Amino acid sequence: MNNAPIGVFDSGLGGLTAVRELLNVLPNENIVYFGDTGRVPYGTRSQSTIKRYAWQDAKFLLKHKVKMVIAACGTVSSVAVNLKHDLPVPYTGVVSPTCFAAAKATRNKKIGVIGTTATINSHSYRDLIHSFDPEVEVTEQDCPLFVPLVENGFISKDDPITRLVIERYLDKVVKSGVDTIILGCTHYPIIAEAIRSVIGDGITLIDSGKETAIYAAKILKENNLLNDSAEKGTCEFFVSDTPDGFESVAGVFLGDNMSHTVEQINIELY
Amino acid sequence: MNNAPIGVFDSGLGGLTAVRELLNVLPNENIVYFGDTGRVPYGTRSQSTIKRYAWQDAKFLLKHKVKMVIAACGTVSSVAVNLKHDLPVPYTGVVSPTCFAAAKATRNKKIGVIGTTATINSHSYRDLIHSFDPEVEVTEQDCPLFVPLVENGFISKDDPITRLVIERYLDKVVKSGVDTIILGCTHYPIIAEAIRSVIGDGITLIDSGKETAIYAAKILKENNLLNDSAEKGTCEFFVSDTPDGFESVAGVFLGDNMSHTVEQINIELY
Repeated sequence: MNNAPIGVFDSGLGGLTAVRELLNVLPNENIVYFGDTGRVPYGTRSQSTIKRYAWQDAKFLLKHKVKMVIAACGTVSSVAVNLKHDLPVPYTGVVSPTCFAAAKATRNKKIGVIGTTATINSHSYRDLIHSFDPEVEVTEQDCPLFVPLVENGFISKDDPITRLVIERYLDKVVKSGVDTIILGCTHYPIIAEAIRSVIGDGITLIDSGKETAIYAAKILKENNLLNDSAEKGTCEFFVSDTPDGFESVAGVFLGDNMSHTVEQINIELY
Repeated sequence: MNNAPIGVFDSGLGGLTAVRELLNVLPNENIVYFGDTGRVPYGTRSQSTIKRYAWQDAKFLLKHKVKMVIAACGTVSSVAVNLKHDLPVPYTGVVSPTCFAAAKATRNKKIGVIGTTATINSHSYRDLIHSFDPEVEVTEQDCPLFVPLVENGFISKDDPITRLVIERYLDKVVKSGVDTIILGCTHYPIIAEAIRSVIGDGITLIDSGKETAIYAAKILKENNLLNDSAEKGTCEFFVSDTPDGFESVAGVFLGDNMSHTVEQINIELY
């Protein structure tokens, strides 16, 4: 048993979709969240930059005595793969739990992966799926306009702009005959309903945030690190640019109307 | 006469549209361009962050012994207004030349301004237009999806996605009866044809990069700083993230097929 917080970080606020799932699965856990809003987006940066940023983000969380670190960011999970070995506490990114769930879900052994350009170029999801089962056919597609769409409120399934962008990016993936698509970026669950509405009901969508939350719960249990408090846990939020507007955006991602306190920190000091 | 280069910087590669105009107006000048691709976008950052970045960018150009600094970036020009006083060489942002041109162009004294969220929230264009003529009615609209559209190749006037986004953002501006619209971000000239196609021919579009190039030529002439070489000038390009892909993007912005050499630098050292 261990009542220390779980540390979660992301390049920005997309990782809050994973926090939402964590709160569902582990309502009694305390959470410290860091969103690197001052250096977002990571998805278009070089690999060396992404690795340096990820290491600073994890160090910030360790200062808060977290018992586990979760990189709730498809880009970090795909590029900064050494974090698992370099941290003194259990760590997970979103790639492993998500690939495992997708490999279990597919019936026809055809899986689609969508994510940022950095994530797709790393082939992280494809390579891990192939390490489970080399016969799975993986169709990859980067969707660089999805994050700006989400961050600027173009999220309704009835918005013709959102629908057209989804059609444009997913056409090739759907035509390849996949029965399962990995939402390989923590922003994408926000438009999952719109994606579902465009591609129909026949394809299973795998939410990387949700699968990662389920996996984190398993790791904590196996390591006897679950919180034994009967109280609802607390959430602390930190960002690296001005917290203006955090409240409204956090509401979109967390799917609640609770009020949040948020503090700005200088991530370059870590 | 002075054969030192002109220094141009932007948060990313949008400022290359201003370089294209400079090459038209002053073909014999040498140009040093810095695009802060490692820290792009500026348009969603806090004011203090934007000011710090702009100062570092200008210092990098001064190291190259430039005879003039141009901030080819609507966001920097709107937020880091002290640069003009702090630099030892002539300086211009894009706001003053553009407002001057718009105030001259309007017949009905109704001007629209479109730009990034930081630019629009600063009201820099509106306030300067009002300092010329308080009676001008200014309608402002931020268009946060325009930069991602341009950077991801959604630039054709026939692309239904591009057209729908333009309609969504410009509807209010057009309905306000403006006869002139300021393209207050150096990315926007890339979709000027698409904007023109959506809003029709009745409204004059003012290109901030073009007006700034014309103004820079005037300043250099007044200060007896024009290059007297009969040779075509050279361009040196520097960026702060990996230069991968610079070639193709530079082609889009510069509107040419020339080959470019580009070097990555660490802007945090300035």
